[in-house]
Amino acid sequence: MSRGEHQSKKLKHLGAALESGALAQVRRILNNDLQAADVAHLLESSPPKERNLLWGMIDDHNEGEVLQNLSDELQSWVMNRMSAQEMADAMSELDTDDVADLLQNLPNTVTQEVLTSMDAQDRARIEVALSYPEDSAGGLMNTDTVTVRPHITLEVVLRYLRRHRSLPEMTDSLLVVNRRDEFIGSLAINKILVSDTDATVREVMSTNIITINATMEDTEVARLFERHDLISAPVIDPASGKLLGRITIDDVVDVIREDADHSLMSMAGLDEDEDTFAPALKSSRRRAVWLGINLLTAFLASAVIGLFEATIEQVVALAVLMPIVASMGGVAGSQTLTLMIRGQAVGHIDGSNVRWLLSREFLVGAGNGVLWGLVVASATYFWFHDLKISLIIAAAIIINLIVAVMAGAFLPIWLKRLKIDPALAGSVLLTTITDVVGFFAFLGLAASFYF
Amino acid sequence: MSRGEHQSKKLKHLGAALESGALAQVRRILNNDLQAADVAHLLESSPPKERNLLWGMIDDHNEGEVLQNLSDELQSWVMNRMSAQEMADAMSELDTDDVADLLQNLPNTVTQEVLTSMDAQDRARIEVALSYPEDSAGGLMNTDTVTVRPHITLEVVLRYLRRHRSLPEMTDSLLVVNRRDEFIGSLAINKILVSDTDATVREVMSTNIITINATMEDTEVARLFERHDLISAPVIDPASGKLLGRITIDDVVDVIREDADHSLMSMAGLDEDEDTFAPALKSSRRRAVWLGINLLTAFLASAVIGLFEATIEQVVALAVLMPIVASMGGVAGSQTLTLMIRGQAVGHIDGSNVRWLLSREFLVGAGNGVLWGLVVASATYFWFHDLKISLIIAAAIIINLIVAVMAGAFLPIWLKRLKIDPALAGSVLLTTITDVVGFFAFLGLAASFYF
Repeated sequence: MSRGEHQSKKLKHLGAALESGALAQVRRILNNDLQAADVAHLLESSPPKERNLLWGMIDDHNEGEVLQNLSDELQSWVMNRMSAQEMADAMSELDTDDVADLLQNLPNTVTQEVLTSMDAQDRARIEVALSYPEDSAGGLMNTDTVTVRPHITLEVVLRYLRRHRSLPEMTDSLLVVNRRDEFIGSLAINKILVSDTDATVREVMSTNIITINATMEDTEVARLFERHDLISAPVIDPASGKLLGRITIDDVVDVIREDADHSLMSMAGLDEDEDTFAPALKSSRRRAVWLGINLLTAFLASAVIGLFEATIEQVVALAVLMPIVASMGGVAGSQTLTLMIRGQAVGHIDGSNVRWLLSREFLVGAGNGVLWGLVVASATYFWFHDLKISLIIAAAIIINLIVAVMAGAFLPIWLKRLKIDPALAGSVLLTTITDVVGFFAFLGLAASFYF
Repeated sequence: MSRGEHQSKKLKHLGAALESGALAQVRRILNNDLQAADVAHLLESSPPKERNLLWGMIDDHNEGEVLQNLSDELQSWVMNRMSAQEMADAMSELDTDDVADLLQNLPNTVTQEVLTSMDAQDRARIEVALSYPEDSAGGLMNTDTVTVRPHITLEVVLRYLRRHRSLPEMTDSLLVVNRRDEFIGSLAINKILVSDTDATVREVMSTNIITINATMEDTEVARLFERHDLISAPVIDPASGKLLGRITIDDVVDVIREDADHSLMSMAGLDEDEDTFAPALKSSRRRAVWLGINLLTAFLASAVIGLFEATIEQVVALAVLMPIVASMGGVAGSQTLTLMIRGQAVGHIDGSNVRWLLSREFLVGAGNGVLWGLVVASATYFWFHDLKISLIIAAAIIINLIVAVMAGAFLPIWLKRLKIDPALAGSVLLTTITDVVGFFAFLGLAASFYF
């Protein structure tokens, strides 16, 4: 039986024990049998009541590891239940970058309290990490680097390592620095193993290494790791050239997952850290805001329809058909918008290729507009036996589809330039445009041709 | 200057050289200065004409590496331009799993041709990889494992490694197997460095290792890597217990990115591999299908409105207000749908917690229904001074929001059970439901209260 299966069997035991109320057994499985990451996943997958119960049964010395594996949302939930001293104790076993991550979710006053409860050395290291924004390379980095000097031999390196008995996790290379702590190269662990032990570090190290500036955005870091299949990379202070720490793939994977989730969740007005099992009241409040914003755009669309009340009164078929025009525009626009947002996220779109994209989208919109305009016109004629209304709806669909794809393409570019998140604001703005233009084109054409 | 900056500077040079037509310079930068991953990214970010031009200038011996870094969509595009022999040559330098990946994008007859052009040993290895589905652990794995036996000393291991001079990339551990090739443990490279060289492999190896069955789904593999911060993991044949190969984090990162992109792109009817710079005709064709499906649902909504033509003729305000009811339902439903799809993707949702989720969603839908129903009713009264229509729209919104969130919650569960992709089918079905129910509730209530 593999360890993976083993874990999932343990989880089933735990579920059964929870249901039967065998709490001592639950406590044993939680603290002895499962890994912190599995316990965190269990908490994420539990409704509030079970979640409270489970968290209460986790031993103090396991709390830090579990905490670190939770999403931001759940970290806040848990930390609201802890005193500053409890938090400081729980964090004492964690890496600097993980502690900084946790602290960034707390109100400033609480952060200060927790820092005061730590010993001086920990506090100093964490304050450095906190001085960088959470979503920068500095916020992602860890200070647990093993550094060596270039002139020593591998023999000496090996003796040094044997004396220390353990290396930090995810250490695939030692970092080579000069006297001024400036990064000059990287000595892969695998190279140490396969090289002659009397070679010097300088002879074996690689200088063709991707380094990361502490101020680089975390999504940019993720792209470098993805593109160059990195396991870890050194972080450099851009001003002094000094080595500050290193970033490891496990933290980058979290950035990649969050970044990709961000587009998906934002387009529905949700937070990428949204707790799947948030209580009803909390969920309702968050989503209410998004519904309220959407309501404004819906009223705007209604106001456009209201302009043409007299026309609709004369030709009720217009009311029957008008949602088709708006809906086709909405779908066409959101396809372009999604493509653009993904393209921006993976770094495909820049100044040089935008013009080509816009003309391609224009052609796509016009092509599909003509195609589906004709289809809808035929169906309309078949339904209402009215040539005029059929031609009007075809024209309205062509207009709306072209406007929709152009809006879908332009909006993300403009929004990004204005530093507004395209995934969040894009879909609301787009719906507003496709509804307003759709209703206005269709009813406006009808009004001018019927009267 | 860091290597990252160096690369982006090279890219700028390349852009300038391309524009000025200095093709010899472009060729030099492409083949000598840039890494394969950067060239691939450049191709992904280029419109078709530039793309053709650039691909033509890549030296034969670089083609394989670049090919491997492209998306599925672009791999097909490139391979359509190559003969079977050219493909076999390009692939000769690549890892087994990457070759299998490439071949899986080709028609079967071409795959056979390429395999015949390879030498016997390569062919055999690749046929093993091809025997597993692309989205399984077997399809992800590589056979470049370094195995050792448990009874030898680290001294012997070190001597063996020094003789071989290099280790496969991403090797963080040697895999320990017994005489029957069954996996029994893992010897971390870092452990070799810090342990006494006269200890045996068995004494130093770890047996508490996550192993992966060759038949495991790739998304499940990704979850294990994410949860346990793995760099590589051994793949086992579930029937015989024999070690088959290993999976490395660089391939898992691709799975995570694709998996996360999948939900986003599918919800707009796009493929996660969608080429941002596909030509207009190809883009139009793909998106036309999605627009056509949407058109059917739009006609269904129109048909519902058509049932109430007589009512609308009497009270035109209904036509003005009806999009609000449908739109609010659509937004509320898609929030729930997105949350569920993300929850399924990260493995939060299973049989045991679905009931809690459904009742939470009911409360959220009812709560927001009452809130926004009242807001819309007030606005409607203010606009039309008609109490009856105000009460009717409030009722319709409450009904539609409850139906919407329940549909948003149930649909992904049902679709998954039917093995239909919730991200792809969910949004169309949901819109159909919220439009039909929205129009029917509002106009139906109006018809019964007005006549």
